[in-house]
Amino acid sequence: MKSVGNTDIANSPALLIDLYELAMAQAYWSDNMTDTAVFSLFFRTMPEHRNVMLACGQQTLLHEIENLHFTEADLENLRSLEMFQEGFLDWLRRFRFSGRVMAMPEGTPVFPNEPILEVEAPIAEAQLLETLAMNTIHLQTVLASKAVRLVTAANGRPVVDFGMRRMHGRDAALTGTRAYTVAGLAGTSNVLAGAVHDLPVKGTMAHSFVQAHADEAEAFRTYARLYPGTTLLVDTYDTRRAVMSIIDLLRANPELRIGAIRLDSGDLRAESGLCRELLDEAGLNDVSILASSGLDEHSIAELVASQAPIDGFGVGTAIGTSVDAPNLDLAYKLTEYAGQPRLKNSPGKLTLPGPKQVYRFYDEGGQVTHDLIAGRTEPAPSEAKPLLSPVMEQGNIIESAMVSASDSARSTQAAFQQLPASVRSIKATARFQVDVSDGLSALQQQTLAQIQNRAGTDQAVRAG
Amino acid sequence: MKSVGNTDIANSPALLIDLYELAMAQAYWSDNMTDTAVFSLFFRTMPEHRNVMLACGQQTLLHEIENLHFTEADLENLRSLEMFQEGFLDWLRRFRFSGRVMAMPEGTPVFPNEPILEVEAPIAEAQLLETLAMNTIHLQTVLASKAVRLVTAANGRPVVDFGMRRMHGRDAALTGTRAYTVAGLAGTSNVLAGAVHDLPVKGTMAHSFVQAHADEAEAFRTYARLYPGTTLLVDTYDTRRAVMSIIDLLRANPELRIGAIRLDSGDLRAESGLCRELLDEAGLNDVSILASSGLDEHSIAELVASQAPIDGFGVGTAIGTSVDAPNLDLAYKLTEYAGQPRLKNSPGKLTLPGPKQVYRFYDEGGQVTHDLIAGRTEPAPSEAKPLLSPVMEQGNIIESAMVSASDSARSTQAAFQQLPASVRSIKATARFQVDVSDGLSALQQQTLAQIQNRAGTDQAVRAG
Repeated sequence: MKSVGNTDIANSPALLIDLYELAMAQAYWSDNMTDTAVFSLFFRTMPEHRNVMLACGQQTLLHEIENLHFTEADLENLRSLEMFQEGFLDWLRRFRFSGRVMAMPEGTPVFPNEPILEVEAPIAEAQLLETLAMNTIHLQTVLASKAVRLVTAANGRPVVDFGMRRMHGRDAALTGTRAYTVAGLAGTSNVLAGAVHDLPVKGTMAHSFVQAHADEAEAFRTYARLYPGTTLLVDTYDTRRAVMSIIDLLRANPELRIGAIRLDSGDLRAESGLCRELLDEAGLNDVSILASSGLDEHSIAELVASQAPIDGFGVGTAIGTSVDAPNLDLAYKLTEYAGQPRLKNSPGKLTLPGPKQVYRFYDEGGQVTHDLIAGRTEPAPSEAKPLLSPVMEQGNIIESAMVSASDSARSTQAAFQQLPASVRSIKATARFQVDVSDGLSALQQQTLAQIQNRAGTDQAVRAG
Repeated sequence: MKSVGNTDIANSPALLIDLYELAMAQAYWSDNMTDTAVFSLFFRTMPEHRNVMLACGQQTLLHEIENLHFTEADLENLRSLEMFQEGFLDWLRRFRFSGRVMAMPEGTPVFPNEPILEVEAPIAEAQLLETLAMNTIHLQTVLASKAVRLVTAANGRPVVDFGMRRMHGRDAALTGTRAYTVAGLAGTSNVLAGAVHDLPVKGTMAHSFVQAHADEAEAFRTYARLYPGTTLLVDTYDTRRAVMSIIDLLRANPELRIGAIRLDSGDLRAESGLCRELLDEAGLNDVSILASSGLDEHSIAELVASQAPIDGFGVGTAIGTSVDAPNLDLAYKLTEYAGQPRLKNSPGKLTLPGPKQVYRFYDEGGQVTHDLIAGRTEPAPSEAKPLLSPVMEQGNIIESAMVSASDSARSTQAAFQQLPASVRSIKATARFQVDVSDGLSALQQQTLAQIQNRAGTDQAVRAG
């Protein structure tokens, strides 16, 4: 098993799992506990300074679940831990997920305590999905939720992902980029991820390219010849000088065409104003100005508000890890077993029992007013839209529920625009109203009372 | 190319690259620029609230570089972008990295502007490594630097990684765990990563396991029977009741043995005190108490200072993404081409030219006093330790420079303990002294003057 690099993910994806999932699965197997469990995946608290999250990663997860199996090498590795019985390893050898998954569509705006997805399956199977489900939904939800803020701030100007170097590893750089597509970014510098996830692949030049040449103008000439319509980076030494040398280059070589210049440092408002002026004076009105340089949603919003003549933004560090909120307190909780509601009442961690549905309510103008979390079998309020629908039955993906990343981008923007402006804002900390149905509240109280009664009985028994 | 999941990483790792690396490489190829370039990988600024970082990921990177090649499917994908010439695609088809890499050992304490590694190769080859080098070193450096803070705070008590569900994707969960080993964590819940990176695999039980059973005591009995010496989670409903039921269980079944209980919510100091008391009263002095529940280095340090009877810590969210500093402003900069020093003087981004060495100085007691960044060919100060050494020559890993993750853990702790206490501290913001040699400063000024002279000449020519 010793090796470095990525080979082992491809060979043993099933073992990228917390040990306790396997330990619990064996315990269920050993006790013959095969009844159906319902697990709910949700987060408890909105990250600070955020008003809304976008649920993402469901499709990647479904494909991973469909493919999930244990190889002989996996079983050999588990055997070496000396805690698994041959009968259970044999169960793992034959394991294929056979259950049902209900999920929100990718890109759905989501709020605390709302299930992003629910898994229904024999308990050992449902338990085995926990680490995988959390890891996959966490990454893409965190990244999509950040990326949509950049899109909001840019107010119609394209935002391109330059973040691969800051993303956490190569899987984040590949599957995470799906979240950028869903959230509405206009492109990515990441060649493979762009190809896989419907995002146009974009690239300019690095400072090193200019530095490697004895003369900046020569670096520009080479690039403009090779890549008609390319973007030239103008801030390696002196921005004004670089723009003047581009103007000279284009005057001397009327067959050359460049699409844009890129600014990557300094006062972007002032520099973009200067560049625009120089370009326009030279008749280069069609050459765009792109900006990068540690931009986030707040600096982009400021530049947009200041009417800086910037036509598009490249963003790396801010979105690569969702730097202000890289984590979400996602939980995967048992809410029903063998038809009986379950909950946990650790301090601050009370959960909602049973399978659920989330309803979204709209006003007459089509704007979202509030959400309702209800038991799944409660009568649906007629005027509301249910957010969870079946995406996997008997372990098989429901193909009609699968949507391409670029189609998701369109429905995401539509759903996002229906939110109140205060919730869409990158600034205000609006509280969006999420109600819990009377039925679900009653079930929670009732389940809690059962647990407390049982505790009382136990203590009475012990005292006796 | 369309697919989701991890398959494509395994099939096309070379295309997880920023497009501009390939565009620049083709430009160098097309201009016949084949001289040797030196690129330096370093970070500019220490993250807020941090005193030191641990360089990590070098070995993973070297293996990736050795394996880096472009498949026919990769070339087909690139061809579809309609910007690459067949001659260049053929160059890519034959690409194998042929250069040299100098690097710090994994786990080396590192400070701003110190090269973690330097790459020397024909410029197109060295440029092609940029995205890969940054992505790999960034992830592991960020995670190792956070993890060592938890180890410091726990002051000798074991810290176990429970973070896979919060880590950004599956590659982070696999290769990132190497950083945890290097930084001195005592175990991980991640089965595959533990096996690959020398970290004992640990697991307890989730709340769902207790909830699935009609009776908590039954859940404990099952686990204790299956897993002698296991850890039982005691806070699902009521901690006191859970501990009492474990005591009853062990009294009634003297053949059973449990190793620890785990607290995952509430006031950990008070709860651990209560549990210790109950266990000791029952003669269960050898049952340990483990704590988890959103712990970070500060809450662990407080618990340790308060003498809470906690024997070990499980940490997830805090280390999974290094939540307070998920990013590092790592840069991969050209510092020499064709024997000529290069630098960039964008505002706030002035770089140090030429190939370099970092020297670490110690006092008579063996404690580190300061570092010196110097040109690599400057005479080495006799009393200092050079931190960069060759790890790859002509594209081949120098096997003698490769160290297992667990051996790195030992040397990391030794190197870390030699730092001044203020730098090791999780609290103080100590500034560690890093000098730049006179020779290197002079070279920087001289290179800068050359650039400015050239700028002056250009403008004179244009004005004339």
